[in-house]
Amino acid sequence: MSVRFLQKGDPRPAPLQAGKVRLYSMLFCPYAQRPRLVLAAKGISYDEVDINLQNKPEWYSSVHPEAKVPALEVGRGRVVIESLDIAEYLDSKFPEPPLWPADPETKARHKLLLDQFEKVYMPYVQCMRATEPQTVMEVVPTVAAAMRPFEDKLAENGHKFFGGERPGMLDYMIWPWAERCEAIRTMYPQLKFPTEEFPQLLAWGEAMKEDPAVRASIMKPERHADFIRKFAEGTLDYNDL
Amino acid sequence: MSVRFLQKGDPRPAPLQAGKVRLYSMLFCPYAQRPRLVLAAKGISYDEVDINLQNKPEWYSSVHPEAKVPALEVGRGRVVIESLDIAEYLDSKFPEPPLWPADPETKARHKLLLDQFEKVYMPYVQCMRATEPQTVMEVVPTVAAAMRPFEDKLAENGHKFFGGERPGMLDYMIWPWAERCEAIRTMYPQLKFPTEEFPQLLAWGEAMKEDPAVRASIMKPERHADFIRKFAEGTLDYNDL
Repeated sequence: MSVRFLQKGDPRPAPLQAGKVRLYSMLFCPYAQRPRLVLAAKGISYDEVDINLQNKPEWYSSVHPEAKVPALEVGRGRVVIESLDIAEYLDSKFPEPPLWPADPETKARHKLLLDQFEKVYMPYVQCMRATEPQTVMEVVPTVAAAMRPFEDKLAENGHKFFGGERPGMLDYMIWPWAERCEAIRTMYPQLKFPTEEFPQLLAWGEAMKEDPAVRASIMKPERHADFIRKFAEGTLDYNDL
Repeated sequence: MSVRFLQKGDPRPAPLQAGKVRLYSMLFCPYAQRPRLVLAAKGISYDEVDINLQNKPEWYSSVHPEAKVPALEVGRGRVVIESLDIAEYLDSKFPEPPLWPADPETKARHKLLLDQFEKVYMPYVQCMRATEPQTVMEVVPTVAAAMRPFEDKLAENGHKFFGGERPGMLDYMIWPWAERCEAIRTMYPQLKFPTEEFPQLLAWGEAMKEDPAVRASIMKPERHADFIRKFAEGTLDYNDL
């Protein structure tokens, strides 16, 4: 998979065709992977434009006011931003298959878990910037504690996925960070993550890897690790990713 | 309106009747007012239990894991927490009238504004704790800047409410803080809030006060001010509110 990241000086892509959507993304960005998973799960055909976040095209701030990814263009000059809002938008606009649980109470529980997931992924940013293994090792207990409600939820609902027999919105919204966990473990072999405490989540991760929507965007741990390492070292070159 | 706040030593209310919901609330809490507005807008009959947050009943932590309000009991031992998740739950469970815009793109825009509303209400916490007018005056520019997108949105959509000709979810979710703004202005007459920059929001506030769901929970600025003052001074007595 080779991606061309649009950068300063590159022209803006041609106007969006009627009825199409266009995702502004960055191949390694976990937030941008969220809508990519939803698009794949729903079989929506879309344009994808990858942005060089270190050297952004001049016109990109007229797509996203803070020039971040992801952004979903849904019509000429009409853009939806924020990964969760984009996911919700896609789920309403393209209802099949529905990704949230039909039961409002179960849905509320999933939303609450998704709120709590922040405590799992925030330390990921620390790992991305870490140049010392010590920094990463220090966040392990925090991450493990924050993962506990997810393990318990899977144990309780007795299905392979949070969504039931197939992945749902909660599964897809947390997957990008689960995918990168393995990369971080590869990078820091001295890191003792208590995997034995998370048998359900481990089985969930393996099952997720078989899901067609996940397979459409998954990358190998080595590739994530390479990106994370270069990012932390400050040697990232978008023209050589 | 006189409310009895359940406190330490008070027995837990009788089990919920089938088909009923019970809101654990606190009369002055803006977060708890959110579901109260939704319940009123949908004409849902419900039990309300007010909690003394300074001296909580022992059993309350088995309702809400962090013993916060609001919490919505939806069946025996089944509880939905977090004001926005409760609002969503109620909107799904009791679909009439629908409170979110039907168009997914408009809904996404409203959700984004709601995300941004945090920048408006976070300074409210500072005001609640302020004992010096200076503290409150310092947050005015921040709040005014954060309110700008809301003023612009109302100007752009040309309706009385964010939701159109009647209040929708966004209107109700931000109202509790708008209601308390007037109290804060009453408390600090020296505070020069640039009201002239927000003609749309002022008209919106007046229109909201006429809405039956708002009228069901609104309290006078003096009553809010009394609560806020006692809270800041540390002289709050739940048995004398």
